[in-house]
Amino acid sequence: MSMRTDRQIRPAGKTALEQMPSYRLNHIVHQYQQTVQSRLRSVGVSMLKMRIIMSLRSYGQLTVSELCNHAIAEQPTMSRALDSLEQQGFVRREQSRVDSRLRLVTLTDDGRRVGEEIHPVIMEINARMTDGLEPEQREAFSQHLGQILNNLRTM
Amino acid sequence: MSMRTDRQIRPAGKTALEQMPSYRLNHIVHQYQQTVQSRLRSVGVSMLKMRIIMSLRSYGQLTVSELCNHAIAEQPTMSRALDSLEQQGFVRREQSRVDSRLRLVTLTDDGRRVGEEIHPVIMEINARMTDGLEPEQREAFSQHLGQILNNLRTM
Repeated sequence: MSMRTDRQIRPAGKTALEQMPSYRLNHIVHQYQQTVQSRLRSVGVSMLKMRIIMSLRSYGQLTVSELCNHAIAEQPTMSRALDSLEQQGFVRREQSRVDSRLRLVTLTDDGRRVGEEIHPVIMEINARMTDGLEPEQREAFSQHLGQILNNLRTM
Repeated sequence: MSMRTDRQIRPAGKTALEQMPSYRLNHIVHQYQQTVQSRLRSVGVSMLKMRIIMSLRSYGQLTVSELCNHAIAEQPTMSRALDSLEQQGFVRREQSRVDSRLRLVTLTDDGRRVGEEIHPVIMEINARMTDGLEPEQREAFSQHLGQILNNLRTM
């Protein structure tokens, strides 16, 4: 008796599920995170912490809620990650002089060094991800991603 | 003193970060999950459980490790989700008659009913996600997603 006779597989379903944009997007993001984590294991920071460091590296200084948006986390998770990054000596939090309710987050020198370690790896994985796409296909793909993000946000 | 003078923003960084495919992909998947969860709150199952139900709905019957691949979870997390789905009466686990080390997972009638509730909502969100893209653009986008997934898996 073959494996096949033990199972009720509907091959038509396979195609439909795996061709859904959401299926591919979920798998891409999962695989991307696996790749980043395995390439940057030695740095010893979580994916969320990497996104925080990358965001601060780009923007210079962000409020906690801006960080929640860019680095994708709810406020409590973000606060715990920032506590930990502060303990590691990678970020500094200070009260805004303009609005005392706001706390502004910045990278320390050590944090900036971690950023310089992470950044080229993330850039390289991003470049290799779109290997095989012509420049105009990359451009179209990037535009489509922007459109889809916009569609989801206004849905 | 304006908000701006309190902060060291580098606007050039903003563009670079937000245009990275990984940034957009992360945000798309996050927003997609938020949308699905808010639309399907009444069903009362987590995203992982929805992915499990959608996978079983498509394939009929899967081993635990096949489910880990399709629904994206490590074995321990998957086992806990399956325990819970079994308690809710939505899935059934049985030993393969062919290979006694394998456990095959199937939807129960109740699980199938949940699948029929989830499926059209997921399909509609997927369709609306690509609103504004011409059929040939959708096709190209889908091909690009396939290519990128393949690139990441062979990186």
